[in-house]
Order: sequence, then C-alpha cells, then structure tokens
Amino acid sequence: MFEYKIIKQCKQTKARVGVLTTPHGDITTPVFMPVGTQATVKAVLPESLNEMKAQIILANTYHLYLRPGSDVVKKAGGLHKFMNWNKPILTDSGGYQVFSLSDRRKISAEGVMFNSHIDGSKHFFTPEKAVQIQNDLGSDIIMAFDECIPYPADYDYAKNSTDITLSWAKRCKEAHKDTENQALFGIVQGGMYNNLRADCAKQLTDLDFPGYAIGGLSVGEPKELMYEIIENTKPHVPQDKPFYLMGVGSIDCLLQGVIRGIDMFDCVMQTRMSRNGAAITKDGRINLKNAQYKEDFTPLEPDCGCYVCKNYTKAYLRHLVKSEEILASMLLSYHNLYYTIKIMEGLKDAILNNNTINYIKKFKLTNF
Amino acid sequence: MFEYKIIKQCKQTKARVGVLTTPHGDITTPVFMPVGTQATVKAVLPESLNEMKAQIILANTYHLYLRPGSDVVKKAGGLHKFMNWNKPILTDSGGYQVFSLSDRRKISAEGVMFNSHIDGSKHFFTPEKAVQIQNDLGSDIIMAFDECIPYPADYDYAKNSTDITLSWAKRCKEAHKDTENQALFGIVQGGMYNNLRADCAKQLTDLDFPGYAIGGLSVGEPKELMYEIIENTKPHVPQDKPFYLMGVGSIDCLLQGVIRGIDMFDCVMQTRMSRNGAAITKDGRINLKNAQYKEDFTPLEPDCGCYVCKNYTKAYLRHLVKSEEILASMLLSYHNLYYTIKIMEGLKDAILNNNTINYIKKFKLTNF
Repeated sequence: MFEYKIIKQCKQTKARVGVLTTPHGDITTPVFMPVGTQATVKAVLPESLNEMKAQIILANTYHLYLRPGSDVVKKAGGLHKFMNWNKPILTDSGGYQVFSLSDRRKISAEGVMFNSHIDGSKHFFTPEKAVQIQNDLGSDIIMAFDECIPYPADYDYAKNSTDITLSWAKRCKEAHKDTENQALFGIVQGGMYNNLRADCAKQLTDLDFPGYAIGGLSVGEPKELMYEIIENTKPHVPQDKPFYLMGVGSIDCLLQGVIRGIDMFDCVMQTRMSRNGAAITKDGRINLKNAQYKEDFTPLEPDCGCYVCKNYTKAYLRHLVKSEEILASMLLSYHNLYYTIKIMEGLKDAILNNNTINYIKKFKLTNF
Repeated sequence: MFEYKIIKQCKQTKARVGVLTTPHGDITTPVFMPVGTQATVKAVLPESLNEMKAQIILANTYHLYLRPGSDVVKKAGGLHKFMNWNKPILTDSGGYQVFSLSDRRKISAEGVMFNSHIDGSKHFFTPEKAVQIQNDLGSDIIMAFDECIPYPADYDYAKNSTDITLSWAKRCKEAHKDTENQALFGIVQGGMYNNLRADCAKQLTDLDFPGYAIGGLSVGEPKELMYEIIENTKPHVPQDKPFYLMGVGSIDCLLQGVIRGIDMFDCVMQTRMSRNGAAITKDGRINLKNAQYKEDFTPLEPDCGCYVCKNYTKAYLRHLVKSEEILASMLLSYHNLYYTIKIMEGLKDAILNNNTINYIKKFKLTNF
C-alpha cells in the first residue's frame, strides 16, 4: 500500500518532488502537515483544510491516549472517522509530549513512566505500547517511540539517549505488524552531534523503514546549526525514502529544509500564532493587536487569494483579536495555514520547473 | 424601502407569517435572529449562517461603539461590509448593555452617563447619540434607546422609567432621518404591569414606528408572567407591523411567543450554551460533558440534517468539549442555531398549512 516515488530531483539543490501513496490517498511532497493535536486542527474545519489543499494532518498519540483514550477512538472506527477527515493522518509517537508535557517522568531502557498533565494519573509508555496505541488510532503513518534530546545536552547524554532511541526503534519495528495499512517511520536523533546523527541514521537504515524522520531539532539551537545537522544527516538516510523534519514549519525553515532534501514538515506555529492574534505575510509575522491596523481596510495579503483575504480586512481581524472573539482564531488559522501550504505548492512547482533558486530568492531569506 | 406584509394569519392562534422588506433583502417572519454582539456571531462564519438559512442577525450598539468604535465601522463602509454579511442586520440601541454591563451608570431624563466595562472610560448616551451610532453602523433595523426595567421593580419605578423610555422614543424618532435605509423600531417597556405596557404601546403607536418591540421580558420573571404580558400588550400595538420579543429564544418561548403574535426573536442562548458544551436536542438541552456520551457514536439529532449531525458523533463533540477545543464551540454553535432556525421554519410552514397547533403539540411543552 505504501510507496514513495520521486518524480523530480532538483538540479540546483537537494530538493525533490515525490509522491507518497497511503491508504487514504497520495501525498505530493514537499508537504507541510497542519497539526491536529487533539484530533482537531485548532479552530479549523476539515472542509477548510480541504479548501486550502492540506494533504495530510498530524495528530498526537500522547494527547489522544490520555483523552478521549485510544480505545474510544478505535471503537469510533479510527481517527479518520472520529474526526471527519478522510485524507492521510500521521501520528507522532508520543515521545516528545511525554518528555515535554507530562509530570514526574522516569525513563529507563524499558520505557517511560510518567504522570498525565491532565489529572496526574500514572502511565507507562514502551515502544510496544506506542505502536499499539497508534495501531488503535489507525493513522496512515505512525512514528517510532523516541526520546527528543533537550538542547543543550552533553555528548554522553546524547549518546546514551540515542542508543535508547535506536533500541526502541527496533522494538517498534518488531511490534508493528500491519505494515500494509500503516507505515512506521524511524526517527533519527543524536542531539547536535553530527557523528551521533550519522550513526543513528545508518542503524535505522539497516532496520529498513518505509520513511525516516529527523527529530530533536528546532529545540532552541540556532537555525544555522539545525541546517548543518540536516545537511550532515541527509546522506545517511535512504535517498529513495521520504525524509521528515519534525516540528518545523516557519516559512524560512520550510524553504531551507526542502533544498536540503526534506520532504515533510509539521508545525503548530501557524495555528498557535493565530490564537495570539498574529498573521503570516510576505513581510513576515504581523501582530494584529498593533494600533496601525485599526483603520487598515486592506486584506492581510492582497495576492493571497484565501477566503480570509478575499472577505476580511486587517481592521476587522484586529477588532476580532482585540475583542477576543473565536472568529479571530478561525480566520487567522485559515489564512496562516493556507498561506504556508500555498508557498509549499509554489515551491513544488518551482522544483518541477527547474526554478527552485529563483523561487526561493523572492523570499529574501537572511541566509540564502 | 421598508414594508411589512402579512401573508397568512393563523386561524388557530395569533400567529402569522409575514414578509419584511429591507435594503438588504426580505425577511420572512416568524424569524429567529442569531446574535452577533461584537460584529460576529460567536464561532460561526457568515457562510455558515447562510447555510443554516439565517435571514437576519443582531449586532450590539454598546459593544461596537466602545470597540472598534462606530467611526471605524462607518469608515469600513458600514457593518455589513466590515463583517462580511450582506443580509439584513438589526442593531439594538445599547440601552440594555448600558444598564447591565457598564460601571457606575447614572441615568437622567437627558440620557445615561456610564463607564466602559472594558477600560473604565466615561461616556454619555442620549437617544440622539444611540440613533447616531446606529446610523453610522448602517444596520437595516435600529432600535430606540430605552431602559430595560429590572425584575422585580415597584410600580413607581416602572412608571417613571417607562415615561423616560417614551420620551426617549420620541427623541429617537426625531433624531432618525434616513428612514429609507434604516427602520427605527419602538420598544414597549412597562415592567410587569399590564396597564403600563398598554399605555406605553399606545403612546408608541401614536408615534408611528415601522415596527415595535417588547423589551424588559425574560429578565427573571416566570415564563407564565412573560406570556401574560405579551398577550396583554399585543392588542395595543399596530397589528400590521412586525412585533419583536427582545432577548428571548429558547425553543418553548419561541413557540409560545409566535402563537401570541410575536414575529421576531433574538437570543444569545444558542451560541452561549455551545461555549459551555451544551446542545439543543428534541429532548431539551444536553450537556456533552456527561460521561454517558463518552462512547455515544450517534449524532446529536439523527433527523437534524445539519452539517454537524451529518458528520460528527456525540463522542467526538464530547471529546472536543472536554479538551476545550475551539472546534467544540464552532460545531455546537452551528447545530444549536441550525436546529432553532429549522424549528422556526417548520413553524412558519405549519402556519401556512393551517397546522400550527399540531406542529407545536409535537414539542410537548409543559404549558400548551
């Protein structure tokens, strides 16, 4: 059921265009995946995601396991049916949230003991359990259970953690049976140490996953360092498999990632900034609370073409933000996701038309 | 531009079906008006309001005057353009909010001095000012400035207040010039005193408004008392003009109001209860937080036919409510408004088909 076919390799950069076949349809890469943490992309209807040409969304194993419970989602007929989204879904493994959100976590080679951030209840995640939950959720792409190494971390910590992540990847692979309906991706860790990253990538490659991710980036390190890690890791994962940069999604990082060979991205930024009253424009992030927009009766982006830019002014959006109206989050999330996906679509077309460099130059990135 | 034509008088009750012509289109009565307090029906897109056949929405003079300012709305080209809603809009006069929301208000025959609930700033509303603000907003129907009498109120207070409301109604009438583009409705007050209500209605009738409202009801009094006041007031307003019951919108009150000759209603209940995780069903209000819905994979109302009931289960809605997701408010507001409007549409058809009593009987009202 799963197949990744590269249909165009950029001659100017390491970018490529590919098609990933899944049980819920094809995904053309490079792709930005909106995040639907709790089985909803916050403040956005599934129909709106279709309108903005979202091809796949991400949902969160940790959150859905705790609430409503993966058993409930399974009884509902799986995540697609539960949340009314019939295109592909990727679920993360819960590793990141166990380490960032839960209380009193205790890690061992066997797994992680943690307390729920919701009610303090005690839980134990193992690689096998993370796979089982994702099997129950029924997502198209599932992720191996890993530890996201904090930044900074000393070499010994990073080495030890990466070894654990590798042993967990192997156990995930063994635990995951239904490879026809769900593709299990391995996750490269290794902190900010290129040799650990390379080692990890090689060992994961030996395990033969249908896709690979690079995790533990965008955790506070300088962007230049992140780009370097990507560049040095990319040669060590199979070139004919999708390569997914986890948790990254600002416009500059998307562009910089794609030309380094990244195929998939996800980020909560687009919807989170919306709830804070901010919008993505060609001049960067703008904060609609600013007084300058009070009587600005122009759209966020005249050339955007999205539902929001066609129908609403910055003055109205500012009013909604200032008045703490839910519609502010709805409209800004719509625009921010649409605008991001549109840029990725344009980038895909540029790669197909041997125009990658020219396309990216328009964005006036500081390090390009 | 404004015309009200009664196309069917119910033979069984005082209900009637009418068509109110406005600059932004015709409204068929009886009609339920969703409330868009701050120039947005909370958590609902204008397109969704169209889908659910909302014919007219209400917006709030007090709120829009304070934020973003009626000058901003005027510069935006009026409220319709500002909020992307091209069907009729009714604005209230601000009277109710001045008395219920503002700080340190001081009433005199001239007007009301009050402090903004947002920033404490001092403002003075007069009948002339309330009309001017509504002229700036550009709504289709504007309301006279009135005092909503608290419940309970002694006779002298109610009498004095009603006299002031009447003098203000007269001043509103004089201040409102553009009767072609905006219809000014008078508001009957009088507290729970039938003779004050009758007097007020008669004196307003002498002023010859294109429509009449009954205010100061649903302020804590028993429903039976409200129905009695409506019954006793109705004969004293012109029968060929629309009669609007302000701030009332529960299903039983809508039905009971229509058969007593009410043509228009508005209520925040439908969207407010959504934000509290509650839905309107044929069995009344249900609270989705209840554990019984955890694995209830059926829609809110199998026969509803709305977008929400076609695509989502109670289990999913419960999950959204429990997770405090914005989508909960979006979906529940959609259903609650759709369901209410659908009942009103059904009632209209029943009146047209001489079937009013049978239609209302299905709802098993306690006092019918």
